[in-house]
Amino acid sequence: MKCKRCSGSAVVELRRHNAAFCKVCFPEVFTEQVRKAIRRFDMFDPSDRILVAVSGGKDSLALWDVLLTTGYDATGLYLGLGIGGYSDRSHDAAVAFAEARGAELRVVDLAERYGYDIPTAGRKGSRSTCAVCGLTKRYVFNRAAAEGGFDVIATGHNLDDEAATLLGNTLRWKTDYIARQSPALPARDGMVRKVKPLHRLSELETAAYAFLRGIDYVVEECPLVAGNTQLRYKNAMNTIEATSPGTKAQFLFGYLDRGIPLFAGDDDVALVPCGSCGQPTIGRFCAFCRARAQILGEHLGSADRAGTDDREVARSLSDEVLPAEIYGGAET
Amino acid sequence: MKCKRCSGSAVVELRRHNAAFCKVCFPEVFTEQVRKAIRRFDMFDPSDRILVAVSGGKDSLALWDVLLTTGYDATGLYLGLGIGGYSDRSHDAAVAFAEARGAELRVVDLAERYGYDIPTAGRKGSRSTCAVCGLTKRYVFNRAAAEGGFDVIATGHNLDDEAATLLGNTLRWKTDYIARQSPALPARDGMVRKVKPLHRLSELETAAYAFLRGIDYVVEECPLVAGNTQLRYKNAMNTIEATSPGTKAQFLFGYLDRGIPLFAGDDDVALVPCGSCGQPTIGRFCAFCRARAQILGEHLGSADRAGTDDREVARSLSDEVLPAEIYGGAET
Repeated sequence: MKCKRCSGSAVVELRRHNAAFCKVCFPEVFTEQVRKAIRRFDMFDPSDRILVAVSGGKDSLALWDVLLTTGYDATGLYLGLGIGGYSDRSHDAAVAFAEARGAELRVVDLAERYGYDIPTAGRKGSRSTCAVCGLTKRYVFNRAAAEGGFDVIATGHNLDDEAATLLGNTLRWKTDYIARQSPALPARDGMVRKVKPLHRLSELETAAYAFLRGIDYVVEECPLVAGNTQLRYKNAMNTIEATSPGTKAQFLFGYLDRGIPLFAGDDDVALVPCGSCGQPTIGRFCAFCRARAQILGEHLGSADRAGTDDREVARSLSDEVLPAEIYGGAET
Repeated sequence: MKCKRCSGSAVVELRRHNAAFCKVCFPEVFTEQVRKAIRRFDMFDPSDRILVAVSGGKDSLALWDVLLTTGYDATGLYLGLGIGGYSDRSHDAAVAFAEARGAELRVVDLAERYGYDIPTAGRKGSRSTCAVCGLTKRYVFNRAAAEGGFDVIATGHNLDDEAATLLGNTLRWKTDYIARQSPALPARDGMVRKVKPLHRLSELETAAYAFLRGIDYVVEECPLVAGNTQLRYKNAMNTIEATSPGTKAQFLFGYLDRGIPLFAGDDDVALVPCGSCGQPTIGRFCAFCRARAQILGEHLGSADRAGTDDREVARSLSDEVLPAEIYGGAET
């Protein structure tokens, strides 16, 4: 097999593109796809301060690598979830990458800062482990970005993540979730802008990029992921992709081209500051503060649970269908 | 396992309902679901003349059986596709059912009436076999219903068919197809009203109903169905359903409740009479007449293929994603 660009010896075959690339050209092709995503959704420019959500897995490190290589101002943020040796090894991979690249890595330890770890949250809270983990990560990253004065949060969600999430939300016709599934969510009322520069690239492609760029990432999956709903949707998409290469891309890109306008307006809720932490929410207290209080056995005061609050409860309880893993990738 | 209704010995277990029923109660439950579908979508009433598209398989015969049993004026129409022994056995099953019930069965032989059979069409035309078969059936049934003065065409599409079709159309964001996927399409400009009274019932349920009612149906699949796109979507849905029972129903019913309004208006095309046969179309000549001319090596005259005609070509070429089998069911 020959490289489509230089006719050298190909190392990566992309069935949906009916093309193959060599070890030199593939990282370039990959980078062009990231550039295309950034440009099309006007994600950020070189003057923006970007906070990259770094898990230590292939997707988030590949993302950080591309952003640094292409000259963006990208700081990493690693969140210690307290999932035993898995978290230790993930932390080490993030630190090693930052040191090798001379990049800034910030670290938040969940237990130290917020008083609980994910295994405890899964046992004590009313949410599934993946749901409370996703909720926690979305909260901590947004808060860290807001407090750190960052312009945008970049996550490593790839094409497989996004197609699986869209499938899950479509199978349930969660029209408000579908409306929010954009590769670039604008900032609003205390929510920092969020972007997914890898959404055009498959899991296989990010793995190949990370490998070819010599990135030492954590390959193991989170040990708590068993039974995750998102994984089932990924499996279903893979079943279809196997006989119809390109279906995932067609599904996600078709949504971005023709689906988004249909669902616009279904996410039209007002955000107000949480009565406890001040972060944006649609109820009196945000889902994170309520989950945390439940896990720690504390009380938030006489929370008014009527009205919009119920809506947020329902929303946060369904977090598993949203990308449970804010970094994106196979760890989900 | 006990029957949920009478505590007798259950013979059918419905995982998505977390319930089981005995051989007496299940056909009643099945019939109630059909009644619910007819009522909710105002499909027809006892004064309407119904033409049932009968393939000889479980779904179409189960449908005909329920309609006759509940007192509707239901005539069967069998279309001989010329697919060797499979068509012969299907014809025999339809005739035997009609005779046993004292019901009227009309028969159209495709080769005799229109000059070609499906195996020939698959070899000679530019469409796949399933696409031209679906196109042919939609045409012949609509024409027979219109010429016979019927008020409505009823097909045996079940929940599995409808969920798979919706999945296929959603994965491609075929918004105009999605807009038309209603269990009841109103009559317009020469198109007879079309209804799917079994859309609330799974393939397993129609098979169980047919078995318990002693219907002798053709079990074998169409020998030309290999590689059918619809089957792949069915497999994908079954993969998800296996771990999340109820997903198919949630997907289809969620669309009917919340999705339909979003896509309405995407099927807003004017119909005009075909320049050759007079049946409704959006181009100068209908897709059926064009396909038939191609198969028979004839010319339709100086067809103007510009403008809306192109649109119809694209539409008919994608027929495989629509229910290729107008009767519904596993034969697809």
